[in-house]
Amino acid sequence: MVTKTLAQHIAKTSYEQFSETAIHEAKRSLLNWLGVAIGAANHESMEMVLNVAKTTASQPQATVLGRNEKVDMLFAALLNGMSSHIYDFDDTLLETVLHPSAPVFPAILAYAEKEKKTGKEVLEAFIIGCEVEARLALSVYPSHYWRGWHITGSVGGIGAAAAISKLMGLDVEKTIYALGIAATDPTGLREMFGTMTKPYHPGKAAMNGLLAALVGGQGFTSSVKPLEAERGFLKVTSEENKSELITENWGEKWEVEKNSYKPFASGIVTHPAIDAIITIQKEHKLQVGDVESITVTAHPLVKELTGKIEITTGLEGKFSVFHCVAAGFFNLKAGVYEFTDEYVNRPDVKELRHKINLVIDENIKEDQVNVTVKLADGREITQCIEHAIGSTDTPMTNEQLKDKFYDVTGDVISTHAKSALIDLVNRFDELEDLTGFFSLCKPAQTANKY
Amino acid sequence: MVTKTLAQHIAKTSYEQFSETAIHEAKRSLLNWLGVAIGAANHESMEMVLNVAKTTASQPQATVLGRNEKVDMLFAALLNGMSSHIYDFDDTLLETVLHPSAPVFPAILAYAEKEKKTGKEVLEAFIIGCEVEARLALSVYPSHYWRGWHITGSVGGIGAAAAISKLMGLDVEKTIYALGIAATDPTGLREMFGTMTKPYHPGKAAMNGLLAALVGGQGFTSSVKPLEAERGFLKVTSEENKSELITENWGEKWEVEKNSYKPFASGIVTHPAIDAIITIQKEHKLQVGDVESITVTAHPLVKELTGKIEITTGLEGKFSVFHCVAAGFFNLKAGVYEFTDEYVNRPDVKELRHKINLVIDENIKEDQVNVTVKLADGREITQCIEHAIGSTDTPMTNEQLKDKFYDVTGDVISTHAKSALIDLVNRFDELEDLTGFFSLCKPAQTANKY
Repeated sequence: MVTKTLAQHIAKTSYEQFSETAIHEAKRSLLNWLGVAIGAANHESMEMVLNVAKTTASQPQATVLGRNEKVDMLFAALLNGMSSHIYDFDDTLLETVLHPSAPVFPAILAYAEKEKKTGKEVLEAFIIGCEVEARLALSVYPSHYWRGWHITGSVGGIGAAAAISKLMGLDVEKTIYALGIAATDPTGLREMFGTMTKPYHPGKAAMNGLLAALVGGQGFTSSVKPLEAERGFLKVTSEENKSELITENWGEKWEVEKNSYKPFASGIVTHPAIDAIITIQKEHKLQVGDVESITVTAHPLVKELTGKIEITTGLEGKFSVFHCVAAGFFNLKAGVYEFTDEYVNRPDVKELRHKINLVIDENIKEDQVNVTVKLADGREITQCIEHAIGSTDTPMTNEQLKDKFYDVTGDVISTHAKSALIDLVNRFDELEDLTGFFSLCKPAQTANKY
Repeated sequence: MVTKTLAQHIAKTSYEQFSETAIHEAKRSLLNWLGVAIGAANHESMEMVLNVAKTTASQPQATVLGRNEKVDMLFAALLNGMSSHIYDFDDTLLETVLHPSAPVFPAILAYAEKEKKTGKEVLEAFIIGCEVEARLALSVYPSHYWRGWHITGSVGGIGAAAAISKLMGLDVEKTIYALGIAATDPTGLREMFGTMTKPYHPGKAAMNGLLAALVGGQGFTSSVKPLEAERGFLKVTSEENKSELITENWGEKWEVEKNSYKPFASGIVTHPAIDAIITIQKEHKLQVGDVESITVTAHPLVKELTGKIEITTGLEGKFSVFHCVAAGFFNLKAGVYEFTDEYVNRPDVKELRHKINLVIDENIKEDQVNVTVKLADGREITQCIEHAIGSTDTPMTNEQLKDKFYDVTGDVISTHAKSALIDLVNRFDELEDLTGFFSLCKPAQTANKY
């Protein structure tokens, strides 16, 4: 009865039942997700999949965010899901390392654009899709993840199917079928991490989940117990049997309320140190010549995962706490640009990296750090961070999310479009027509022209 | 190195290296697969997925077999893969219960039609795709299957990707990527058996595998060890570690040589009894009034799996050895028509079912049977079958495969088209242009008209 009960919840739940926090967090999720999706629009892997979409004669139904091309709904779901995960800079539910937006929003937006849905309907579908995938993730975590499934891909498609079922207004029976068709089609081996196929996972999950809902919506039958059966999704892909987590206490709180956003484009263990140096620099505005040395006292994992000092590529920069601190020192941020090959090789950045010492202290927690800057004139400045920005205890503020949006979208869209999009997302529940929203997601030159 | 070695094999192997048996069996596989695909072309589940293809603005690139519609390559792969598995009447590699044609041929034909490939190229791609999926199946069987994966879907997509890589002429590196993208996207939970989603599995595998090859062909990177790595396909989806089976002794023999075809549309345990009654009827041409009783002495599984005598639907008929024997008695076959609701409820068929006794004998093997017909005039006719037709020891003859093709395609295509297709498949390696072949796969009225 697990899947049936879940389908009943999906069919019955409506926007009015969501908490204000859930709606607020859904909008923050959308803004953060939209930014990273637009930002990576021109990545070479996007060109490759677009070439394939053209080969298969994909038709213009839905916008590829940050680009001029429109493609059919299924390819739009694939492409936007991919781009939003390319920078590893999207949102996270920390309990299960699930990135909830990347497989769900692209499916919703593709369908909503073609079928002219409202902003409120989009947010409703997202909160439900996020709820379903997050609960599924909790029910199979950790064995599912440790066995080798990239949880964002493997449960994300079922979340997408749930969201589209809601958006289509499917009845309970057809929602069960949609969930079943998605459950039989999971995507994502962790072995793909470090390759273009990692971001393919949430994209393909969005595509599979959208297709599952479209097919299930036709009355195409699947098992009525696709999740909980002896040979269903949970038991085939995990060792836990926590199926009760999928439906219990539905509606009391919403998983989206716990969503978190990365303030910096590097691994999470580097975030306290970046936070500390930015705090120092906002006050002291130091130049590289002022600094004799910087000492970072941190949790052992910081050295283990990001202890590399000799680096030449942007990707390596993400795994060097030395580079992360240097970036924060110069730019007061550590976004996409600070992890380009060009930036990593800038002489002043390199010079500063070599003035930084890393000291490990087993008594320091993962989201804590102590940074001391010793100046050439003999003074010392110390900054201690208890909970780094972006952690559960210190979530990013709305202002910080806006700054991230401006930064991560780079020169893909115009500054005008950026501020207009921020405004639209802020009142997304009031939008009866999403045409203007999608127009603003077009590239800068187009946005300026029309 | 497993995947790399496999990709080298795929890239280097060419048609000239195949045994005559392999080529002969590939053509028999094509004929059998084509027949069951055309036969189910008008199933209601096909209409449902075609509706979805229209919703997503699919463009006419490739033929839906047995229908007038053309759709894009990806949907053609999905639809033709589905239709060929709807009747559960396609080919089987008995060691692993893999149905090798259903996920591979649809991907090949869709690509071949659009890109104007030759018959020889199609057969080459099939033998290679079949080889890859069959070896993968052996390497994960049985734990993969028992854990709950529908092996035809879950390894079939990788076979399809291998076949299309060959057809596209990809180099080793891109072939590795294609295999990797397919490996990260397996389809098929056994929980779906008995629903429309079961045949969706080989269809979706064909679609996923074709997409994987198209994307990998662009240079889109995946892991270079997607099959054998610690978190690769084999270890994530099975408990065995038989990766050596994927590449060892490549080219010494071909898995397609072992392919088998079902002579009757019911479960395999009923086949010896049907074979026996047909043998009797070919000689004696008995009427139902001649018969006092029929005694079937068979293996215990026959009673366990097909012991039902009171039935009202065609589907139930497949699980009734009584009905199977009645069908063979009247029609000298047990194809699609003999398992329709209409046929099952025919009074004379029902009358004969109740004259049949089933006796279990533990000493009889699964592919053996003893059938004794007691006539009203006191005579007795006995037929013993040692190895039922369709078993490894008594494969279907070419003539029997042709008869099956005529039967299973029903009234979907014209009789002229049937004989013309049989002829074309027989000399498929000589076809430089497949246009005529695809035209013949159109429905009867169209085929007659033009």
